[in-house]
Amino acid sequence: MAAFVPPNERPERSPHLPFGDCREAPFYGKDIISVSQFNREDLEYIFGVAREMRAMVERVGTFDLLKGKILANLFYEPSTRTSSSFFSAMERLGGSVIPINEVTYSSVAKGESLPDTIRTLECYADVIVLRHPEVGSAALAAEYARKPIINGGDGIGEHPTQALLDLFTIKEELGEVDGLTVTMLGDLKYGRTVHSLARLLSLFTVRLNYISPDILRMPPELIEKLEAKGVSQKEYSTLEPVLAETDVLYVTRVQKERFENLDEYEKVKGAYVITPETLEQTKDKMIVMHPLPRVGEISLEIDADPRAAYFRQMEYGLYVRMALLAMVLGKA
Amino acid sequence: MAAFVPPNERPERSPHLPFGDCREAPFYGKDIISVSQFNREDLEYIFGVAREMRAMVERVGTFDLLKGKILANLFYEPSTRTSSSFFSAMERLGGSVIPINEVTYSSVAKGESLPDTIRTLECYADVIVLRHPEVGSAALAAEYARKPIINGGDGIGEHPTQALLDLFTIKEELGEVDGLTVTMLGDLKYGRTVHSLARLLSLFTVRLNYISPDILRMPPELIEKLEAKGVSQKEYSTLEPVLAETDVLYVTRVQKERFENLDEYEKVKGAYVITPETLEQTKDKMIVMHPLPRVGEISLEIDADPRAAYFRQMEYGLYVRMALLAMVLGKA
Amino acid sequence: MAAFVPPNERPERSPHLPFGDCREAPFYGKDIISVSQFNREDLEYIFGVAREMRAMVERVGTFDLLKGKILANLFYEPSTRTSSSFFSAMERLGGSVIPINEVTYSSVAKGESLPDTIRTLECYADVIVLRHPEVGSAALAAEYARKPIINGGDGIGEHPTQALLDLFTIKEELGEVDGLTVTMLGDLKYGRTVHSLARLLSLFTVRLNYISPDILRMPPELIEKLEAKGVSQKEYSTLEPVLAETDVLYVTRVQKERFENLDEYEKVKGAYVITPETLEQTKDKMIVMHPLPRVGEISLEIDADPRAAYFRQMEYGLYVRMALLAMVLGKA
Repeated sequence: MAAFVPPNERPERSPHLPFGDCREAPFYGKDIISVSQFNREDLEYIFGVAREMRAMVERVGTFDLLKGKILANLFYEPSTRTSSSFFSAMERLGGSVIPINEVTYSSVAKGESLPDTIRTLECYADVIVLRHPEVGSAALAAEYARKPIINGGDGIGEHPTQALLDLFTIKEELGEVDGLTVTMLGDLKYGRTVHSLARLLSLFTVRLNYISPDILRMPPELIEKLEAKGVSQKEYSTLEPVLAETDVLYVTRVQKERFENLDEYEKVKGAYVITPETLEQTKDKMIVMHPLPRVGEISLEIDADPRAAYFRQMEYGLYVRMALLAMVLGKA
Repeated sequence: MAAFVPPNERPERSPHLPFGDCREAPFYGKDIISVSQFNREDLEYIFGVAREMRAMVERVGTFDLLKGKILANLFYEPSTRTSSSFFSAMERLGGSVIPINEVTYSSVAKGESLPDTIRTLECYADVIVLRHPEVGSAALAAEYARKPIINGGDGIGEHPTQALLDLFTIKEELGEVDGLTVTMLGDLKYGRTVHSLARLLSLFTVRLNYISPDILRMPPELIEKLEAKGVSQKEYSTLEPVLAETDVLYVTRVQKERFENLDEYEKVKGAYVITPETLEQTKDKMIVMHPLPRVGEISLEIDADPRAAYFRQMEYGLYVRMALLAMVLGKA
Repeated sequence: MAAFVPPNERPERSPHLPFGDCREAPFYGKDIISVSQFNREDLEYIFGVAREMRAMVERVGTFDLLKGKILANLFYEPSTRTSSSFFSAMERLGGSVIPINEVTYSSVAKGESLPDTIRTLECYADVIVLRHPEVGSAALAAEYARKPIINGGDGIGEHPTQALLDLFTIKEELGEVDGLTVTMLGDLKYGRTVHSLARLLSLFTVRLNYISPDILRMPPELIEKLEAKGVSQKEYSTLEPVLAETDVLYVTRVQKERFENLDEYEKVKGAYVITPETLEQTKDKMIVMHPLPRVGEISLEIDADPRAAYFRQMEYGLYVRMALLAMVLGKA
């Protein structure tokens, strides 16, 4: 009889431990909630595993590291890119995925709380990726869950796996992160990807340039925080002054809707589009990144340029997410 | 040449029979439509298989009993809980799932009949779980299908797998069903889960207490039916008189929308919320159940109490659904 | 370091080549965009593989030919039938499927172009099935993709896998295609399935009869094209004159909405419904086909007649799609 084992006395996150999971593995059973939980050593470890994942995918496509494990892909708002990427990551590791995309129409619509939904899903799955429009939702879910939670984006809060894949892209494409000049372009006020990436980069010795319309500047409190960590930062309103020194040009979209005054938008938008002419002024060895989707801010004409790294960036994302899934499930 | 084999002369539900399916297995090729199709012996058999499933999941997580089998998860209305549960059940058995959640926007929107949709899907799948808003839809589907149909809820009709997992929860948590006092609380008029569970319980020697607002009482025709079977039943409007004797407290939600007079709702609603104070008056060895989602009718403060069985109930559901899938596919 | 390998210098569509893929296999790495890309020899090859798939499914249900391969099932408009069929085809071959049904609410809603979506998904998947409302979308996707694209229907353009399964049905049910009289009934103006099938049939020696309301006649430019290829074609407004000679009766739906004048619709609709009486006037050895869903244009009373081939047609579709997936992935 199995009665009366209160949940809080049950073994922590280790239902299948005896069969190959490794309790000692770093990140085993851990949640991935925020970039602030990682130090440089963690990053090296994650990227080392991601590199192994890449080698395996290139050699055999798919393998059975997570055979028998189930991922619940819980998306309260749609995101084809993130959800497909985790889906593929789990399948390439031999695991299965329960796609849950309609939560808004379902239990949640009936008023169920996020903790209850999470506690239900962890009865069926071994790990949960959560995408949710509210800041802090992933941390809330992790507080209640016995199984690992991976934050797939919580509103304007964090999107740690995006920041990790961005950093992994830089590392793999340029070899080292220390010593680089990273120029961030576009909407630096609302873009959670640039915030998270800047935070991660503060663990390295880099120079950051911020180029944005005046109303979309990097938040002063974030600038202060990074300054306190000794990061060299400069703000500009156009790209020209820093193009020649830039190793990584990280482009984000400037959305029309951010502007109250459309004349203002029309005036600035041209300054934030990357064209073949832009690349004429850059180093030969540099990369252009973008979290995608893009809507005109990078000209299609440069897609074939070796410096255009944004589609490779997607692929690095696959390896980073495979690494994270394997790690929190104790298999890496 | 394969021409002119009329569907009705084709072998019944056994396309892969020579390879390990067992025709003699109880429930092989059968539909799961209503609780009324089970006797006590059937229940023992199902629960025995469910117990084996639990042992296997706890030992190895997933295994290949249904490798090569495909489940079509056909949901005409969303239900994260039921659909995820079947999804996970099939994946943990090594099978695959075709999720079909958008039927309302698709062929069906074009006016296709349920039998035609079913006869199409059985070309692709080995078993079909059907959730449909109309009473009788699962029976209709089963009439046309050559492959097994499992009723995942047909409107206010039946939800047999929910009733089976409820009964399995009681059995596993309390050891025996005979001799128990089961108290059902809340909306007993519209709640199909309590109706189905009461029917299943009538196969055992139990005492049933019904606690509900006056306008949400257990339907008289059901009470009569159970009385004819010799079940001891009593109705109350508050919980207090029966708390001390209750072995199973089955809580359901009292929906505001059921009340024409909101004053009436405000007056009664407090009487149907389970709090730590409620549990002070119960036995030490009893369980609180809920089909979930809950919206306030059980206080979060009792979640950690060993008597709070509702999240374990979800987990028992996984094992029962694994058992049913294995059984109708001839593998248990 | 993997930097600076421009996409256009990367090996073409062969990421996993060393491990069992066969570069010499016909259709390896090819896109399936239009029926016009096939000659009779190709069709024989495809159908040969489809026949092997059928034999394997009947013997073992599922097998591991595409283990480790991932299909992205990218549906910009819902189609339960086509999407479930590809889903099942991939699963029965041991592969995995990423279902992407919500594109309209997601990246695409944010304005992402189809080529960008495709180039993202091919980072995660090995083959992409694309259903899209715009004519030419599959060809556009194929232009940008390094991985194989299979057209799952592009608006009123093409639906090549439907045409292939239609032809395979005729071949399997009647043994030979040469010498047959194929009668197409219903909406011949907008029905892309009859257009594609007629084009494929022009590779054989067949006689085609077209029966439709005057406003829904086969497009004159298609008739001309087929005439140039020597196909014998005749148009009628009722079925009676050709019923006795018909080997294949291909029924499509006449939609009320096509008619400006509803009186006109009421007058003609009866002439396009197949009943037991219709079949009394046909050969014993002939078949009735329909792409489904049907909404009244074929009486349920003939479903049990051996000549009613439309549900078997669905099943042949599974084998044809299995064949195509295996072929473009170099495994057949």
